[in-house]
Amino acid sequence: MRLFLLFFLVTLRLGAQTWTEVAPGIWKARIGKPEAYDLLTAAAVSPDKKGLAALGTATFPLNKADVKATAADGKTYLRFPLQKQEQLYGFGLQFQHVHQRGRIFNLHVDHYGNTDNGRTHAPVPFYVSSEGYGVFINSARYLTVYAGSAVRLDSPNPPPVQDRNTDPNWSAHPYSDAVEVLVPATGVDVYVFAGPKTLDAIRRFILFQGGGCLPPRWGLGFTQRVHRLYTADQVLKEAALFEEKEYPLDFIGLEPGWQSASYPCTFEWDKTRFPDPAAFVNTLGKKKVRVNLWTNPYVSPKAPLYPAIKPYAGSHSVWVGAVPDLTIPAAKKVYWDKFDREHVSIGVSGYKIDEVDGGDAWLWPDVATFPSGHSAEQIRQTYGLLVQQQSTELYHRKNQRTYGLVRASNAGGASFPYVIYNDNYSHQDFITALINSGYSGVLWTPEVRASKTGEEWLRRMQTVCFSPMAMINAWASGTQPWSFPEVADQVKAIARLRMQMMPYWYSEFAKYHFQGIPPFRSMQLEEGFAPDIRQEKTNTNLEENPYAVAVAREIRDQYMAGEYLLVAPVFTGQTSRKVVLPKGKWYDFYTGKYAGDGEVITVEPGLDKIPVFVKDGGIIPFMPPLLHAPVAGEKTDLEIRVYGSRERSYELYDDDGETYDYEKGRYSWRKITVRKQADGKLSGTVSAPGPGQPDSYGQITFRFMTN
Amino acid sequence: MRLFLLFFLVTLRLGAQTWTEVAPGIWKARIGKPEAYDLLTAAAVSPDKKGLAALGTATFPLNKADVKATAADGKTYLRFPLQKQEQLYGFGLQFQHVHQRGRIFNLHVDHYGNTDNGRTHAPVPFYVSSEGYGVFINSARYLTVYAGSAVRLDSPNPPPVQDRNTDPNWSAHPYSDAVEVLVPATGVDVYVFAGPKTLDAIRRFILFQGGGCLPPRWGLGFTQRVHRLYTADQVLKEAALFEEKEYPLDFIGLEPGWQSASYPCTFEWDKTRFPDPAAFVNTLGKKKVRVNLWTNPYVSPKAPLYPAIKPYAGSHSVWVGAVPDLTIPAAKKVYWDKFDREHVSIGVSGYKIDEVDGGDAWLWPDVATFPSGHSAEQIRQTYGLLVQQQSTELYHRKNQRTYGLVRASNAGGASFPYVIYNDNYSHQDFITALINSGYSGVLWTPEVRASKTGEEWLRRMQTVCFSPMAMINAWASGTQPWSFPEVADQVKAIARLRMQMMPYWYSEFAKYHFQGIPPFRSMQLEEGFAPDIRQEKTNTNLEENPYAVAVAREIRDQYMAGEYLLVAPVFTGQTSRKVVLPKGKWYDFYTGKYAGDGEVITVEPGLDKIPVFVKDGGIIPFMPPLLHAPVAGEKTDLEIRVYGSRERSYELYDDDGETYDYEKGRYSWRKITVRKQADGKLSGTVSAPGPGQPDSYGQITFRFMTN
Repeated sequence: MRLFLLFFLVTLRLGAQTWTEVAPGIWKARIGKPEAYDLLTAAAVSPDKKGLAALGTATFPLNKADVKATAADGKTYLRFPLQKQEQLYGFGLQFQHVHQRGRIFNLHVDHYGNTDNGRTHAPVPFYVSSEGYGVFINSARYLTVYAGSAVRLDSPNPPPVQDRNTDPNWSAHPYSDAVEVLVPATGVDVYVFAGPKTLDAIRRFILFQGGGCLPPRWGLGFTQRVHRLYTADQVLKEAALFEEKEYPLDFIGLEPGWQSASYPCTFEWDKTRFPDPAAFVNTLGKKKVRVNLWTNPYVSPKAPLYPAIKPYAGSHSVWVGAVPDLTIPAAKKVYWDKFDREHVSIGVSGYKIDEVDGGDAWLWPDVATFPSGHSAEQIRQTYGLLVQQQSTELYHRKNQRTYGLVRASNAGGASFPYVIYNDNYSHQDFITALINSGYSGVLWTPEVRASKTGEEWLRRMQTVCFSPMAMINAWASGTQPWSFPEVADQVKAIARLRMQMMPYWYSEFAKYHFQGIPPFRSMQLEEGFAPDIRQEKTNTNLEENPYAVAVAREIRDQYMAGEYLLVAPVFTGQTSRKVVLPKGKWYDFYTGKYAGDGEVITVEPGLDKIPVFVKDGGIIPFMPPLLHAPVAGEKTDLEIRVYGSRERSYELYDDDGETYDYEKGRYSWRKITVRKQADGKLSGTVSAPGPGQPDSYGQITFRFMTN
Repeated sequence: MRLFLLFFLVTLRLGAQTWTEVAPGIWKARIGKPEAYDLLTAAAVSPDKKGLAALGTATFPLNKADVKATAADGKTYLRFPLQKQEQLYGFGLQFQHVHQRGRIFNLHVDHYGNTDNGRTHAPVPFYVSSEGYGVFINSARYLTVYAGSAVRLDSPNPPPVQDRNTDPNWSAHPYSDAVEVLVPATGVDVYVFAGPKTLDAIRRFILFQGGGCLPPRWGLGFTQRVHRLYTADQVLKEAALFEEKEYPLDFIGLEPGWQSASYPCTFEWDKTRFPDPAAFVNTLGKKKVRVNLWTNPYVSPKAPLYPAIKPYAGSHSVWVGAVPDLTIPAAKKVYWDKFDREHVSIGVSGYKIDEVDGGDAWLWPDVATFPSGHSAEQIRQTYGLLVQQQSTELYHRKNQRTYGLVRASNAGGASFPYVIYNDNYSHQDFITALINSGYSGVLWTPEVRASKTGEEWLRRMQTVCFSPMAMINAWASGTQPWSFPEVADQVKAIARLRMQMMPYWYSEFAKYHFQGIPPFRSMQLEEGFAPDIRQEKTNTNLEENPYAVAVAREIRDQYMAGEYLLVAPVFTGQTSRKVVLPKGKWYDFYTGKYAGDGEVITVEPGLDKIPVFVKDGGIIPFMPPLLHAPVAGEKTDLEIRVYGSRERSYELYDDDGETYDYEKGRYSWRKITVRKQADGKLSGTVSAPGPGQPDSYGQITFRFMTN
């Protein structure tokens, strides 16, 4: 005789009364009894009310009756409707796919392991739909997501039953009319973000977290992370070489060897390699080169900090080092005070915080316990948020902006000035991650480390210069921009182009901050972009493809950079590539020549160039190719490049570039306006900065790229 | 201010009073409040008390104080100690590794996806140690296992802290002194199995489940699964070809086309292809060829059974078909009555039950609900057990043994006469799975489907003939044993060798049943086997291996088959291979020549042979190369091959080969004894069967293989 369990299954009706509009176009439903500690609690950020208000009001974008929640088995089951033709995007930093409908994820902070299964550096539980809305599940648990893969027996609109014996169109993945999510907790807060456009839903999601981060100007320059065992002298020599060879350099990253012991860490300078850290940082600072420090957060038993942090440590070690429970205020204080004392107070500009992602084999296990009582799972889902939030706060207290690197983030982290990176090194996957970062409110750098050939070196350098952080990470290899002499000139050219475009990048990041628009994002968010997304059976050999699984075509190798630029990277071995141009006229970035309109073009850019196209009416402000970002108060000239023949305007952002004074209103949006004159020719004007506001620009000229 | 959770964390002391000896050498601890539905409940099997008693008594193999359980976060955390030099094996049907220490698993029924991460067809939560004990966690949940990967901060014997800056021996995976398991439930029953040898712990685990399965004799012959759309005439013609070409054939498997619709299924014969199923089965039966039917368990809305099963179906479909909740007795009855009526009663010999493993994309999601109230997770972990147990029961009621195929199993399933298979087709991984099957009480077939070359075809055929089921699965390709004319003779030879060895295979399966000894198992269980298991850094290039992860050498390409045989498969492209011979003399299976003793030898077997070695004193009973297994009462001659010079005896099992009468004592163990005569030559004797017991053997001769 089989024993029967009591059948606890409660379906909650999510009617009109359940949804509270918490900001214009953002609704929250509290389901069951949510846990006190969630992603937004960990991030400890507040919505940008002004930015959200500017987006206007909207109506609830789903049929409320179609959103369902069930409590069963001690968990919460969520269900959101899908229309037949809807496509889904997001669910965090995925590396291989942009279209997410039909996929299954276990959202879990981890190193990306070559499969888009939800284990990633930023498993943000947020998705947007091609129908123009977004959904966010505010849980610090490992969520299992069925993004349109499961078919209910009682579906009101089920797919047809097919007989595989006779029906060649039989599919192992029949159409599903819902996104379903398993939340392993007895309750959760769910948010819905209105459009009307998909980008609007993303913007609301980012502004709800306080807006995207605004890096300091120098953060958008060029950065070199030097060999892990370099001494102070070697670092100074390397900086001098950059100067001498005229390669831009804004900050240098020191890798593990700056510490007296690493993996786990002491957070103390190694005095044999860095005998006088303050003088070292100061020397570089005088040359306008800042210092960023690598660390992982795990405290070595050899660290002087260890006795003070041990009472706040989790049960399990990472590499025998203590894991501080940074949800405890006392732990946070003792921990970051150390960083302040040893590094920030002597001028260190920021951090690269490593290994907060995983992998499982060395991170604390899910059976670890923490003194706060938060579970290992919750701490894992939020540790990247905690280190970002707390280190940012440290700099914020000093009214000094920082810009660094981190290996894990999550929802709530959009405003933190950190860029995600990893150890994977697939150039293609790096670009797909860059595309997907824009869906999840995170930043990603396709960092350059080493290369087998000069071609690869240059191709990687071209894309990293069109990303949130233009970086060489030479920790293992000691590479330098000029390591491949056959492409050293081209590398210098692209690094200098990066510097020239700083006014554009800076303005685009300001739009990320104030308007929630991701600076790097998917083509699907661009109006007029409609690639062929038919499902096609790629392999009908049953031996190799026994379930006849169809594969969707998707564009994962071109992206939008800022308001106007379409970037189409070329990978090693390619001499030509296809580029899908959205509807509307597009122009070559380098020549201003007309390139196409709503069509697929083939380009052969040669080795020197990364294909970049500018939208009709595009306005790109350039500055001279300085070797270092201008400091506060320093004036640079502007050359405003204009593409196509359309009248348009551009918002040029300006502030001091280094402090948080913009939070007190110390900034300007200067309007660049391009109009047709009576003779049909274009001419441009730029409005003045607000009275008493910073003014970073000297002589301003216009260059009309298209004849 | 951060909100703090109440800190629920209770560490249970698992002292002497906690452990109850439930059978000699088997202890159980009840931790917290276990769930009513677990793996053993689903399997509904009883321990073989007689077999367990024969293994004798033992003392608790661990330090009880070192076994710990903690209740936290609504889950149960378990901790078992590890000694420094201990190696771990098991955790279910892994495909790439035999050594499991240091690995992390999420034990989850699923199709094997090219990574040993715990998602597999039989994620059996049981492990054994080289120190000679076993641990089983009786939970039908997805268990997260840290098999010696996590280091506690308070470890009494922690690994040294290493500075990666200076220490070239720094390891990302420091030594851990425990296996830790997260059970996502508020309680669980845990079992510990004593040795003293590792194999003894496995035997206790298998006998605790009722012993391994004893297939019918015909199950150990040769089987062909024909093209999925074959008609009755085509099948009969294929069977006639086997007869005509003199290839052995014991049962034919029909693939989806026998059903009127498939994926999901109707369980009804397609009358266009099989106009008279009973006559068809009967015609083959007269030729001593049985019929096995493919199915998956999911009920098509077009099936006549659908209305009756729908009230017992889960919330979600598989390919729009209903998933019967087979934990409900009424569902089980209506379901299997259909199978009885349509198939079993007309003589069908068994089933191949497909797609009970996953994958996630088509199986019910974890948010599915079932009318019994069991969670989707629990149903998934046990569905393979349920279909095996219930179909076996159907045959048991008819006193008729069956032998079939299934895609998922779990702990509790050892006694079910089913062999696991999958869609993966890596010959190497197939052999590793065969090795690992023995650690988990499951059977695995490295089935042959198609091949690119005759060489591959023959190499695969050689190993499948030294496995629990010698099978070609031609569902997709329509291959036949003679499909590669250049190796057709060799294929026939190996298939005939399979038949000749039937008395050996049958006796070894009887030892699986009565004594719990897995017929196919790892070299590590063989005394005198001590391969070099040093850790070695295989790649010191930090760009490619940033965490300097060492890889353990392990033997995953040779295995033991029955009491005496060491099988060392050759893979496509190899002309020679190394074989690790345990200590003790070993002889060539084919020639009887001395091969080595506790050493690594290199063999060049040629294409015709799979290298097989026999332990000193090995006794292998052969019968003539019949084309079909002998039926009940049919007598065959025996040639007993003897290897080496040692005196030894062998237990030859005999019964009617087809019914369950052995459960009522209708069987014999006949003792084959080899002794040295006064002249130093060996001679052999065989004891008679018990009075009134079946006697399957006619003339018995001895062949001394070693001069």
